[in-house]
Amino acid sequence: MIKFRAAKPGDEQVIFELICELALYEKAPEQVTNTAEQLAIDLFEDKICDAIVATLEGEIIGFALFYVSYSTWKGRCLYLEDFYVKEAKRQLGIGAKLFDEVVAIAKSRQVKRMDWQVLEWNEPALQFYRKQKAILDGEWVNGRLFFD
Amino acid sequence: MIKFRAAKPGDEQVIFELICELALYEKAPEQVTNTAEQLAIDLFEDKICDAIVATLEGEIIGFALFYVSYSTWKGRCLYLEDFYVKEAKRQLGIGAKLFDEVVAIAKSRQVKRMDWQVLEWNEPALQFYRKQKAILDGEWVNGRLFFD
Repeated sequence: MIKFRAAKPGDEQVIFELICELALYEKAPEQVTNTAEQLAIDLFEDKICDAIVATLEGEIIGFALFYVSYSTWKGRCLYLEDFYVKEAKRQLGIGAKLFDEVVAIAKSRQVKRMDWQVLEWNEPALQFYRKQKAILDGEWVNGRLFFD
Repeated sequence: MIKFRAAKPGDEQVIFELICELALYEKAPEQVTNTAEQLAIDLFEDKICDAIVATLEGEIIGFALFYVSYSTWKGRCLYLEDFYVKEAKRQLGIGAKLFDEVVAIAKSRQVKRMDWQVLEWNEPALQFYRKQKAILDGEWVNGRLFFD
């Protein structure tokens, strides 16, 4: 029985492990400099972002992490920063249900748009998002400056 | 004499005109459904985002609009949503100074990274960001869902 709930203090260790799993899949594990402790502060104290988890028999097997963002063209948006289901638990429709949960949250917050990014070579993810009737646009380049 | 200052109530009309100018340049003017009135609420009442303006003899000739975002890999970031200088006022180094102002704000807020997006065919902008020693990464596709 899959259940979904808001992330709560104590979940940060497992969520952070899943973040690292996803970074490994995205071929960038060395780019993760965040920590579970910092994540707990950002999620539960400073509330910069928000997360929900999918649980199976009490065990967290997936999560979605998001925050309110802003489009000058549209207004208030929801940015889905990470969205992940453990590999061993896929093909059970959990991802689609988790995605629906995030969409419901976006709608309840009355945002104009939900945004995320997906790697251009991540065909299973692209296929999943196409099924969700998402617009996929590869015309934009990410600009970044890193600070120490 | 170029000056920079935080945007303040009353600036929303000019900032919104510049947003529309930029959207036109980005070949998507029809995608702007936001309004100056809503922008004023989002900037000055709900404070979802923040903006600075560049003025020349009291006239607003450029702006930068940004908000705090979050990276699961890095932590707290600053997302630069819009960054624009009026075409007639370019080649005077105003853009570089405005960009420096945003970088200074990002550093003062102790974020780990500053992010933005640029269209892959916008060569003048890409060249500008290369000069700022930015990392430019075209490997990610934007996923989007729009809500009515």
